Amino acid sequence: MKLRRVVGFLIIAALFVPLGRAAAHKGGSAEEARRAIEATNAKYGDAVQKGDAAAIVALYTKDAILLPDDGEMIRSSPAKIEEFWKASFKAGVKAAKLETLDVERMGDVAVETGRFAMTIQPEGKEATTAKGKYVVVWKREGDSWKLHRDIWNSDPAAK
Amino acid sequence: MKLRRVVGFLIIAALFVPLGRAAAHKGGSAEEARRAIEATNAKYGDAVQKGDAAAIVALYTKDAILLPDDGEMIRSSPAKIEEFWKASFKAGVKAAKLETLDVERMGDVAVETGRFAMTIQPEGKEATTAKGKYVVVWKREGDSWKLHRDIWNSDPAAK
Repeated sequence: MKLRRVVGFLIIAALFVPLGRAAAHKGGSAEEARRAIEATNAKYGDAVQKGDAAAIVALYTKDAILLPDDGEMIRSSPAKIEEFWKASFKAGVKAAKLETLDVERMGDVAVETGRFAMTIQPEGKEATTAKGKYVVVWKREGDSWKLHRDIWNSDPAAK
Repeated sequence: MKLRRVVGFLIIAALFVPLGRAAAHKGGSAEEARRAIEATNAKYGDAVQKGDAAAIVALYTKDAILLPDDGEMIRSSPAKIEEFWKASFKAGVKAAKLETLDVERMGDVAVETGRFAMTIQPEGKEATTAKGKYVVVWKREGDSWKLHRDIWNSDPAAK
């Protein structure tokens, strides 16, 4: 009799395992993450337009990895991310338009794939637009989603 | 009496919720994911050396997104990934060396950051090496880890 009760308990308890797994994903859908990501991308665009490197740094996790196209990898260094953006502004970066194509969420992590268009106008020269694509791995910290891995590259050269 | 038993059961069952969450991470640590990823990267390198595009495609999820540097984005198309690699072999790609720098795991997803060196030798020309860095988002499917997002770009040009 006692054994049967134990077995019965274990069977019912096992039903709670999937519930536990569902709980790990509590706190929102992929759609919710996408909205937060698009809102943060808009902030990113604003900060680029203002030339505000510090505001951009605040959007990244402290241990983010930034992998600039044709540039050196930056690991876990907010100061170097700030430096990177200050150098970009000096080189004439005026605007960055980010377009989210795809967001896949796994709990507190979301992977975004998107396209960008960057306007570059060095002092006394014509403005050009660099187009490309990116993958950003986002991490939820408290109520905000932050860039945790950020890598982009160029579209094929126009012929 | 009956109520107490139900309450007692619920309390004990609740203890299983964290167990359920742990179960979601069952099958290993970040270290284990890293070993699986490095093993798959070695297979990737072998397939490149053999010029075996089909073997490379098998390492990706069906809905993978490939974002080649200076190339068109490929979304959810194993056939196009195969085409991409066949074109790369035609263009003279002979070898790809992948070096994992960092793996962060969240359940069935892992994010890898690494460096690559690719040997390219078009017909009748000298071999050159293209160096760069990448981010791969891996997804566990059953017992194997597959490439789910794959993007790379170039290191700064040597001066």
